Amino acid sequence: MGGDHGAPEVVPGAVKWAREHPADEVILVGDEPLVRSLATEAPPNVSFVHGPEVVGMDEHPARALARKKQSSIRVATELVKSGQADGVLTAGHTGAGMAAGVLILGTLPGIDRPALAVQLPGGKPFLLLDIGANPDSTAENLAQYARMGAIFAERVMSIPNPRVALLSIGEEKGKGDARIAKATELIDQTDLNFIGNVEGRDLTKFVADVIVCDAVLGNVVMKFFEGLSRYIFDLVSAEFHGSLRGRLSGLLFLPSRARLVKKFDAEVVGGSPLLGVNGTMLITHGSARRRMIWYGMEATARTIREGVNALIAESLGISGQAGAEDAGDGREAEGN
Amino acid sequence: MGGDHGAPEVVPGAVKWAREHPADEVILVGDEPLVRSLATEAPPNVSFVHGPEVVGMDEHPARALARKKQSSIRVATELVKSGQADGVLTAGHTGAGMAAGVLILGTLPGIDRPALAVQLPGGKPFLLLDIGANPDSTAENLAQYARMGAIFAERVMSIPNPRVALLSIGEEKGKGDARIAKATELIDQTDLNFIGNVEGRDLTKFVADVIVCDAVLGNVVMKFFEGLSRYIFDLVSAEFHGSLRGRLSGLLFLPSRARLVKKFDAEVVGGSPLLGVNGTMLITHGSARRRMIWYGMEATARTIREGVNALIAESLGISGQAGAEDAGDGREAEGN
Repeated sequence: MGGDHGAPEVVPGAVKWAREHPADEVILVGDEPLVRSLATEAPPNVSFVHGPEVVGMDEHPARALARKKQSSIRVATELVKSGQADGVLTAGHTGAGMAAGVLILGTLPGIDRPALAVQLPGGKPFLLLDIGANPDSTAENLAQYARMGAIFAERVMSIPNPRVALLSIGEEKGKGDARIAKATELIDQTDLNFIGNVEGRDLTKFVADVIVCDAVLGNVVMKFFEGLSRYIFDLVSAEFHGSLRGRLSGLLFLPSRARLVKKFDAEVVGGSPLLGVNGTMLITHGSARRRMIWYGMEATARTIREGVNALIAESLGISGQAGAEDAGDGREAEGN
Repeated sequence: MGGDHGAPEVVPGAVKWAREHPADEVILVGDEPLVRSLATEAPPNVSFVHGPEVVGMDEHPARALARKKQSSIRVATELVKSGQADGVLTAGHTGAGMAAGVLILGTLPGIDRPALAVQLPGGKPFLLLDIGANPDSTAENLAQYARMGAIFAERVMSIPNPRVALLSIGEEKGKGDARIAKATELIDQTDLNFIGNVEGRDLTKFVADVIVCDAVLGNVVMKFFEGLSRYIFDLVSAEFHGSLRGRLSGLLFLPSRARLVKKFDAEVVGGSPLLGVNGTMLITHGSARRRMIWYGMEATARTIREGVNALIAESLGISGQAGAEDAGDGREAEGN
């Protein structure tokens, strides 16, 4: 129900996906009369659950979630919790989605804090996490993000033996602040394909597949990526709409423009997985239209089918790393 | 002596500046015979001091500095310490420059940690700090960066009453991690023109003039800015060198290209001030060529003339903010 465009874009995207995947079941959660009216020509594998309330962009996520028992995000996440659904995709308020994941689903045994991970377009895709789930992360958290990100990259992004890196100042291993130095030690003890640090300038060199950082850093990088790439393309575009010479240049550039637009197409990423919660949850862009919803459904289904959460739990259970001692009882891993 | 191109680029840039500023004195520090041979047609306001050693890019800054007593950066910084020079500009190893600033000049009374600040090109210039001087900054450090950055922006960048912001997740004031929340409280108590948080996407909207963050975040943003803008321009440029159609488009785009290159010209920034040390120090890009050195001389001279350090000390001395209690005795301000 939430997001910039709401049900009129979410429903058609999900219905199209359902039609193309008749063996899967799609449950649309929202204001049922509205959703039904938008889900014209819905195939038999689409069902409806009523959840008419919306968490507004200006609301405090956890408080809104507690008060609005009929909010679509809460009702949908509870379907996952009760086992009636295998995963949930939301285009609503990102904070409310994360709060629903943490408060309703809880974290996986051995996981202290979940992380929100995004695939950045522009070249060879790579996974950046955390981009906002956990503002005050510890070195132990970062080490768990590395493990979770590697599993997602391998299983959902189909990158064998993904290269894992910490985002920091300087390429020298362990260089950065105290948290990064400690996380380096922790990740070094794992069997991950850990390549040490990458710097800001390496982000467009695609030298790593999974890039781990704290939430503030990840969030700034993700939004700066969006903002700066749009800013530069807008500057170029303005030149193509200026003088006659510029306009002619722009006309000739059209096939090139199409290639670049395709390269920077964020919609095909589909959605960002909230890794570490006890259930599959993906959060897509608030501005997602039906095409991006379709890709979000695809990413959610793939995350479920590949059993990403079971692999994360298994990876923590069989290793001697951060969180392993707590595996199975659900207590916090802090201090390991 | 250091940097990617060394004396053959640094010397001509500095000599040109000296020729255009006959009332100022320029001291060239380096391997004297080499520097003299490069400083042909040096005007009478140029003098020479021998400092032939170089700190290599692979050396540990503080250790190299201690061992290499004749390194150009050490000798030049000692000229500032002894009062024989009013300020120093270096194009060498950034870490060695920062170490020389901190170890030889020391910090200003009341300043706990210095910060390296950079002006980012691309539109309306703004100052970003810290970009690497102090990896483990506290909220008190961030509050001091805000104050120092505002003074530099006002006096050297000529921005009256500069808008100061913290770089974080979300625009809501105080949102982010615990350090950002606390820094918000501290900066709120000052008379700075503090506008709260800016997000990664705001960096290209030029809504703030001084953007404060910790070293890892600032360093990643600065290098990501360099890397991503170059990456996108290279992609566009590749299209202009591809098909016949693309090449024709590129030819027509030439005047536009010149405008964009000018907009993203990092050389005119000149250098990054190391704010908070007891003496004027600017560090320019290791890849700086003579033109950027010229601008670096200009920025250094302006920082000296405007008395930025005296203003920082005064600002700490007359206010009741972080560090004020310690002003004058040089002790650390931590814990205020």
